[in-house]
Amino acid sequence: MVQVSLGCAMQSPWQMVTGGVTAPQGFQASGVAAGMKPSGKPDLALLLAPEQAVCAGSFTTSVVRAACVDLCAERLAASGGKARAVLINSGQANACTGDRGLIDSQRSTQALADRLGLDAEAVLICSTGVIGVPIPMPTLLAGLDPLVERMSPQAGAAAANAILTTDLVDKQVALQADLGGQKVSIGGMAKGSGMIHPDMATMLGFFSCDVAVELSLWKAMVSRAVQRSFNAITVDGDTSTNDTVLAFAAGATLDAAHHLALEQGLTEAMQHLAQAIARDGEGATCLMEVQVVGTRDDQVARQVARTIVGSSLVKTAVHGRDPNWGRIVAAAGRSGVAFDPDAVALWIGPHQLMQFGQPLTFDRDAASAVLRGETVVIRIRLGDGPGQGRAWGCDLSDQYVRINADYTT
Amino acid sequence: MVQVSLGCAMQSPWQMVTGGVTAPQGFQASGVAAGMKPSGKPDLALLLAPEQAVCAGSFTTSVVRAACVDLCAERLAASGGKARAVLINSGQANACTGDRGLIDSQRSTQALADRLGLDAEAVLICSTGVIGVPIPMPTLLAGLDPLVERMSPQAGAAAANAILTTDLVDKQVALQADLGGQKVSIGGMAKGSGMIHPDMATMLGFFSCDVAVELSLWKAMVSRAVQRSFNAITVDGDTSTNDTVLAFAAGATLDAAHHLALEQGLTEAMQHLAQAIARDGEGATCLMEVQVVGTRDDQVARQVARTIVGSSLVKTAVHGRDPNWGRIVAAAGRSGVAFDPDAVALWIGPHQLMQFGQPLTFDRDAASAVLRGETVVIRIRLGDGPGQGRAWGCDLSDQYVRINADYTT
Repeated sequence: MVQVSLGCAMQSPWQMVTGGVTAPQGFQASGVAAGMKPSGKPDLALLLAPEQAVCAGSFTTSVVRAACVDLCAERLAASGGKARAVLINSGQANACTGDRGLIDSQRSTQALADRLGLDAEAVLICSTGVIGVPIPMPTLLAGLDPLVERMSPQAGAAAANAILTTDLVDKQVALQADLGGQKVSIGGMAKGSGMIHPDMATMLGFFSCDVAVELSLWKAMVSRAVQRSFNAITVDGDTSTNDTVLAFAAGATLDAAHHLALEQGLTEAMQHLAQAIARDGEGATCLMEVQVVGTRDDQVARQVARTIVGSSLVKTAVHGRDPNWGRIVAAAGRSGVAFDPDAVALWIGPHQLMQFGQPLTFDRDAASAVLRGETVVIRIRLGDGPGQGRAWGCDLSDQYVRINADYTT
Repeated sequence: MVQVSLGCAMQSPWQMVTGGVTAPQGFQASGVAAGMKPSGKPDLALLLAPEQAVCAGSFTTSVVRAACVDLCAERLAASGGKARAVLINSGQANACTGDRGLIDSQRSTQALADRLGLDAEAVLICSTGVIGVPIPMPTLLAGLDPLVERMSPQAGAAAANAILTTDLVDKQVALQADLGGQKVSIGGMAKGSGMIHPDMATMLGFFSCDVAVELSLWKAMVSRAVQRSFNAITVDGDTSTNDTVLAFAAGATLDAAHHLALEQGLTEAMQHLAQAIARDGEGATCLMEVQVVGTRDDQVARQVARTIVGSSLVKTAVHGRDPNWGRIVAAAGRSGVAFDPDAVALWIGPHQLMQFGQPLTFDRDAASAVLRGETVVIRIRLGDGPGQGRAWGCDLSDQYVRINADYTT
């Protein structure tokens, strides 16, 4: 966990443990190399939730979305969140593939459902890879038997590895807490290096939790946690056709007194993986965290934070270790949120650069040194309101341009 | 003029001429080196309109805006657009300078008004330069006498030169047309290299026209022309604290039958300078024009065009001469505009890359060659609607990152 506090956050009861997405009781996973990736790396994964599981999903807001996204959204809506399993294939995004895309998604889930003894409606699919390229169906179907054979409650890491595309590192998390005497675990895995390659860098996240939660409450928790994590990261502002987060919950009933703590754990797990994605941005040399306080409400604070963390000018200034407060304030000013410019205060790390909307004299070398850290925290106060929010991103390097300019040709 | 047609545009009656902002009859300008720029380059300019002029303004939408922007907006509102002159100082933006900023703006305009025999309320001021730095008032005031002395109907170029900051080239335009036997001229000058340096790259535009137009009509024309030009360019999505466009009209009455042609000329003049700004983006190697057709209306077409032209992934692909249709479609998909993905068609130059939402086989080398041109045209059709719009920007190069990372330190 990156240790950054914002205001007086509640002390967390959650501890990091091992096991990833299979850390919670009753969950199984699997990951194999089916041969869909030219590299021969693992490319097919599975997560299976216990009976009685409920599943909440969050999907790309892009108008152009892959067939698998439509399938997931429709099945979750039709079944009231009664999904049991998700199949993930990496290598081909199955987006912009026309009618064939949906047919392939349906066939894949039907074939896995048959092997698991489930109704096809209870099986979801997520694809990630090159846009415009269909799934090589014979290869995927041939991979299902080994995938199901290797399924185990210890295979979280194998699954996390098989969902990667351009990622430099795998991304797993597992948290555990004692909530009123009940041991509760949350697990997660994600892929994505931050929309750097929208051809290949769908953001996918999968979460598991071993308590029973009523669906509408679980959906609300997942939605808020996604807002505070995956929807608060940006590498270059682009959004993929396949972005999906799926979160399963199944187990013993949790006393309602602990629902807030459960949501806090889910948020921490998602923030951990969201930060890992931002840090994994191509060419990135640091994680940027922007904290905004003093707004009307949290939503607008996040909006300002996202605008600052997504500004090319701020990102290049951070890359150049340049404490350029003018760029930060200019980004806040165009965020669409109203504030009094004469109330603005700004910090880079512990160094205050502005007060009452005007620049202060500050130690430029010390502020520049803060920008050399692995995690750079920029904090801005826009007024006296109760709103606060954070967003994460990475610096913009010339390496980013070289990688992306030379991607296809 | 960049010759790019979109649909069946009206044949233009406007011809390019020389003279810049002083091409229209009755306008005078001036530009001098007052000593506010450390480089010693010209840094103080003036544009004087004839009596009876009306002036329409368009200002930055940023919440953080400089004192001079407030002064311009307030004086134009209070006087009903009866402005006669504008003073432009380059070197210091006079933004984030507190109460002193407004006082300095008022003193500067009062001093110029005294020398021109005008009411201070009829004089406006625009500042551009480093944010947080006030105007060196004794230097500016000492420059006013030489500025007024050199004022002439031939000094458009001198003024255009004195308003520059980080621009690599000056930006002037003058158009002339015979509208029903009446010779009409439109002149303009601008500065800006596209928000690359928000510290130094305010976008300013000044226009002159030698016909009388009723204020409310003139304001509407200017507003629409700004939408189709300066509000349709993006270099990196950042917006300055000082962005301002001022347009003056004064002269003989124009028959209402020619108002549409007048607006067309004003739009062409503004588009010419907007494209010049996009082309002048730091590190840019080409001008990108994105054309969007087939939407519900023009406004949403422009919204999609702006999103595509502003996408870091599209910009780096163009820089790498990579005909990456996936990135273009992904950018359209996240623009906030609804469309049927199965209706999308896409061209790079004359080469069609997509039809009915799916990729076509295309000549990759030929498409890549199109991306080597000085102007790259990307065209996307989203449906059968009547809406169309264009936006302009530039590619994103590793040089951009190096310039911006090393700006202050």
